[in-house]
Amino acid sequence: MASSPDGPRFVDIHPLPADDGPAPKPRSRAAARQVSLQPIRPPRPTAADFSMFRTKSSLSKPPTPSSLPLRAEPAPSPPPQAVVVPAGRYFAALRGPELDHLRAHEDILLPKDSTWPFLLRFPVNTFGVCLGLGSQAILWGSLSSSPATAFLHVSPIVNFSIWVLALASLATISAVYALKCAFFFEAVRREYFHPVRVNFFFAPWIVCMFLTIGAPGAVSTAPHPVLWCAFMGPVLFLELKIYGQWLSGGKRRLCKVANPSSHLSVVGNFVGAILAVRVGWAEPAKFLWAVGFAHYLVVFVTLYQRLPTSEALPKELHPVYSMFIAAPSAASIAWANIYGSFDEVSRTCYFIALFLYISLVVRINFFRGFRFSVAWWSYTFPMTTASLATIKYAEAVQSPVTKAMALALSLLSSAMVFLLFVSTLLHAFFWRTLFPNDLAIAITQNKVVSGRKKGAIDSKNWPSQPQDQPSPVPLASAKI
Amino acid sequence: MASSPDGPRFVDIHPLPADDGPAPKPRSRAAARQVSLQPIRPPRPTAADFSMFRTKSSLSKPPTPSSLPLRAEPAPSPPPQAVVVPAGRYFAALRGPELDHLRAHEDILLPKDSTWPFLLRFPVNTFGVCLGLGSQAILWGSLSSSPATAFLHVSPIVNFSIWVLALASLATISAVYALKCAFFFEAVRREYFHPVRVNFFFAPWIVCMFLTIGAPGAVSTAPHPVLWCAFMGPVLFLELKIYGQWLSGGKRRLCKVANPSSHLSVVGNFVGAILAVRVGWAEPAKFLWAVGFAHYLVVFVTLYQRLPTSEALPKELHPVYSMFIAAPSAASIAWANIYGSFDEVSRTCYFIALFLYISLVVRINFFRGFRFSVAWWSYTFPMTTASLATIKYAEAVQSPVTKAMALALSLLSSAMVFLLFVSTLLHAFFWRTLFPNDLAIAITQNKVVSGRKKGAIDSKNWPSQPQDQPSPVPLASAKI
Amino acid sequence: MASSPDGPRFVDIHPLPADDGPAPKPRSRAAARQVSLQPIRPPRPTAADFSMFRTKSSLSKPPTPSSLPLRAEPAPSPPPQAVVVPAGRYFAALRGPELDHLRAHEDILLPKDSTWPFLLRFPVNTFGVCLGLGSQAILWGSLSSSPATAFLHVSPIVNFSIWVLALASLATISAVYALKCAFFFEAVRREYFHPVRVNFFFAPWIVCMFLTIGAPGAVSTAPHPVLWCAFMGPVLFLELKIYGQWLSGGKRRLCKVANPSSHLSVVGNFVGAILAVRVGWAEPAKFLWAVGFAHYLVVFVTLYQRLPTSEALPKELHPVYSMFIAAPSAASIAWANIYGSFDEVSRTCYFIALFLYISLVVRINFFRGFRFSVAWWSYTFPMTTASLATIKYAEAVQSPVTKAMALALSLLSSAMVFLLFVSTLLHAFFWRTLFPNDLAIAITQNKVVSGRKKGAIDSKNWPSQPQDQPSPVPLASAKI
Repeated sequence: MASSPDGPRFVDIHPLPADDGPAPKPRSRAAARQVSLQPIRPPRPTAADFSMFRTKSSLSKPPTPSSLPLRAEPAPSPPPQAVVVPAGRYFAALRGPELDHLRAHEDILLPKDSTWPFLLRFPVNTFGVCLGLGSQAILWGSLSSSPATAFLHVSPIVNFSIWVLALASLATISAVYALKCAFFFEAVRREYFHPVRVNFFFAPWIVCMFLTIGAPGAVSTAPHPVLWCAFMGPVLFLELKIYGQWLSGGKRRLCKVANPSSHLSVVGNFVGAILAVRVGWAEPAKFLWAVGFAHYLVVFVTLYQRLPTSEALPKELHPVYSMFIAAPSAASIAWANIYGSFDEVSRTCYFIALFLYISLVVRINFFRGFRFSVAWWSYTFPMTTASLATIKYAEAVQSPVTKAMALALSLLSSAMVFLLFVSTLLHAFFWRTLFPNDLAIAITQNKVVSGRKKGAIDSKNWPSQPQDQPSPVPLASAKI
Repeated sequence: MASSPDGPRFVDIHPLPADDGPAPKPRSRAAARQVSLQPIRPPRPTAADFSMFRTKSSLSKPPTPSSLPLRAEPAPSPPPQAVVVPAGRYFAALRGPELDHLRAHEDILLPKDSTWPFLLRFPVNTFGVCLGLGSQAILWGSLSSSPATAFLHVSPIVNFSIWVLALASLATISAVYALKCAFFFEAVRREYFHPVRVNFFFAPWIVCMFLTIGAPGAVSTAPHPVLWCAFMGPVLFLELKIYGQWLSGGKRRLCKVANPSSHLSVVGNFVGAILAVRVGWAEPAKFLWAVGFAHYLVVFVTLYQRLPTSEALPKELHPVYSMFIAAPSAASIAWANIYGSFDEVSRTCYFIALFLYISLVVRINFFRGFRFSVAWWSYTFPMTTASLATIKYAEAVQSPVTKAMALALSLLSSAMVFLLFVSTLLHAFFWRTLFPNDLAIAITQNKVVSGRKKGAIDSKNWPSQPQDQPSPVPLASAKI
Repeated sequence: MASSPDGPRFVDIHPLPADDGPAPKPRSRAAARQVSLQPIRPPRPTAADFSMFRTKSSLSKPPTPSSLPLRAEPAPSPPPQAVVVPAGRYFAALRGPELDHLRAHEDILLPKDSTWPFLLRFPVNTFGVCLGLGSQAILWGSLSSSPATAFLHVSPIVNFSIWVLALASLATISAVYALKCAFFFEAVRREYFHPVRVNFFFAPWIVCMFLTIGAPGAVSTAPHPVLWCAFMGPVLFLELKIYGQWLSGGKRRLCKVANPSSHLSVVGNFVGAILAVRVGWAEPAKFLWAVGFAHYLVVFVTLYQRLPTSEALPKELHPVYSMFIAAPSAASIAWANIYGSFDEVSRTCYFIALFLYISLVVRINFFRGFRFSVAWWSYTFPMTTASLATIKYAEAVQSPVTKAMALALSLLSSAMVFLLFVSTLLHAFFWRTLFPNDLAIAITQNKVVSGRKKGAIDSKNWPSQPQDQPSPVPLASAKI
């Protein structure tokens, strides 16, 4: 809804690279060198050139090679969209806990100063909005139905309203992202290879399961197993892909790509297990719990160790750390649902989540001073999951203390979601700054070592031509 | 049986280095340099010189030093068999998931072009054949006796036949390997220090336990505890040795030597736990399960992280990855046997194994195109263990789906074993290529940096003599 | 008591740097260079200058800058006590499993040849004495009251005597360390930042809990919950601090600072859980167990992997390895206390501890040949904890074997404590060598690269002045 006015605009902006055109023949060696320094990157377009991120089949005609006379001759470098950006490159070119800020001295493929098409600026972590709202729907459903919070007399209408809102946001965001897939598939591909973003591809399916679990009246009637199959299928497919990458996939080894948002790839299992219990399939639930637990263990230990190879965890704390709470909370709820009681395992998982929660709360001053972004949304659902686990715990251990804990955590998470909701509306419609240019998808494949090279241009002899940098312009032609 | 015709041949081939003899005095500097470049390696014998791998006491007389006039003068390098090859050297000189292929530019101590004595070519992972057959014997025993597969009406004769076959293969292979220990103890020592091979020293004892567990009629009569002591003793001894190395043993730290075959050192605990339950010793079973579980956890996390220090895990998938299935399957069966029911812990372990199994099956195309080797055998027993766990699971959860799973996995593992059995027979008796030269045990202690040095020969001044390379020929004599 | 005769002596030794005085103006360049090589370190005081480690408020007047004419001019380096020594610096300057030996070529801030004030030589790991005695008090309480060891007829008087001794030692050591905090707070701060020492800040509170648990007659009357709050509060505060550092605290990442004494930070949780059960608070006990277990898992895996970044684990084994036994033993006892029976989880933890115990005992020869130090004490309490767990186990599994195990381990730990007690008394009162100069707190902030520089002094040109080394003496003045 929020983005529909912007939605159709992108289609007719620069459908083809009109002025990708004949680069002026360089006369000086320095100018030629400058070209050779940017081997993969096309000459900076004066107006924006977004065709490289378009779905290939949606390009009516390929860019004419004759328009790039100098570059086409020696070794026609593959078009940028054909090349997969290696994982290390994302870490080298980007910074911040979400790897969404460009490092100094890094250049990007798209113009920084103009606004890109809406779809290109629409990141996959926008699904975090649905995660936050969907989990809130479950929370308010629990608050109204749980015996531990019966004293609150929460009306089921709250649950219903939030559920409808979550459903609407999911429908909207899914529709927009589907358009992005259709028109800018190469940008989606780059998000898929982004070490942080890839985990958000789990989000839509987790939200679907959230909505099924938190549907009004879901407690009375069990959902149909086909829903579980439909939502869990893509999650399992993605998991086989991503866990396999950790174990055997070349450079994307876990000790390199592990970051707090990796928890998202684990949480799906526990949510799926909860839904499996709801549809009446206990054994698949246990299967998912086991898979989730094994990989949670690995991710937990890896993140706690903070291996020197893992560059994603920044020195300062950040909302991204709240992800640590999500997996043990969800594991606790799932185990309690599967085995019917909040027993030792549930409690151990829950208390681990609680300790991590406390550990973050006492560092609350770290959380201040960060610029709002849509990614913040995904950090509300761990808080909500912890609240849900606390309600479950308060059902098992009935005392004023546990009820107070459940109430406090629930209010905290709801307040957080409300604040974010208002901020998002303000950013979306008032300031219109919700979706800045998404630099993370537009990094170059190779580092343009401009700093070191600028000094080298003046020097007469180039004794050591760097081997890792393909030079499309041969030296002979550069000396013309 | 299969190797007995070749067996006795090795004894009388080159019992002493007859022509290890006087290398011609080098006249040119290049030739002298060439000698100095291979400091530890003796001059390439024209006929094979295998005495360095012989058991020292079996050498009737030491090699005469006078036959090596040039080398004996400056610094009589210690005989190769006296020096332990450091762990890092194996990783530096070898490649492949089993560390059995020589890297380019690496040289070995034995002639590559001739066939070595049979015993030297007989690697310790031949015990994998027994692992595969022994586990199959248990599987077919389970298929004939388990209520979950009673509908198959499997005759116990199958179990008996495979058991006899497994026992025969164990007897043969043990006998041959005992001969290797007796005559080529230095080669056995090098296998013990090999980061992958060392784990196969657990195999004979695990096979013994397999055969005791899978013995025909074993379900009716409990084996005597003395069998458990006899078979588990060496496993515990090896574990104290190897786990201690991980924790405190110099360079053989786990983050360095971890590889999928490390699972073999863990599986022994679970198999031992199952046997302990059979002999009626529940507490030692629980002890072994705990020890196995703790170390499985460490190995699992370490392998999943794929630390940059661990060079053993290759980019592409390989049969060696099937090892991942073995430990959780065995842990699941052991727990169910100890505590009498296929409960949460059993299920969690089993489902982890199942997920890893699926994770490998969907990557099946990685498994094609590999050259057959005897090491493949050890990758059948994880499949069989998973089948056994599935049968246990099908007993606990009785449904057509679980029965179908048990049947499918059992058939898959049996088909795999059958295929390997035929391949092995073909390679052993028809093509006679079952045991190629075992390059892994013949690597040099020090890297012979021939590539870099070849350019240095022409240069007049050698400013930086590498310190880590002992030069038995002093520069003065090299300038003759 | 033991240290009270030495106690008051420190106060009046060198209360102020009387002769920190005017360094003679260097005449030769070499002499000037020598000064410039020690930029942070003040000129070696002829008599001791301990004011830098004093609590700042306790200094009556600041050191007069005029007494350092040469150094004060160019860039008045911050006073050393104001700067936090980075974690990596401790690893770089110190060696040994307890990081208490100075590396060669390292210099320290205090004179090596004279004896420092008593308080400066009083390290925080002296609390290990209380850990050892406190756990022995519990052990002898258990021996006299447990049905598994009732056949020994141990008198409760032993428990009482050891408990009083432990209480007295705790009071004495706490008093002395409180004085250290009051007068030499900067030295305490340096101990807090020491990667090994920091874990001993948990010790006083663990000892308090030991004494509450092991108090004579504690089995009959439950202690008051306020005791638990008083003792567990500081532990939880420290944990939030230290676990947070692992996860998000700059350079003190776990893969860097992990060492066996990190177990101390985990054991506190399990001891706190046991005490919580005693005071009747089951849920907080479960919370602590979960927190302890999660972090034990991380520490266990990290230590077992021996990451290359972790330099604290030496090649050879050392008493510090006995720390490995403490956490699983305590976890086992705590779980049994919480859930009322020595069940699967208790047993798994206990057997892991037992295996690690065996693993150390078979390497007993590694333990010989180490110089006695007060740190040895902290390595007795893991043995005692293992004995306590064995007694619990012998209660659950009643057999002569388990009783013999309980008896043997108890005697072993008591003998060890007795030996250490005698050694400590001898070192304290007879040889007076119990507290040597505590080099670990006096390392310099920056490495003084004297070795490389000594050659550079003779050379005419200094092309590359190292950037990380502030040169307080400018080159111009150095050429005088």
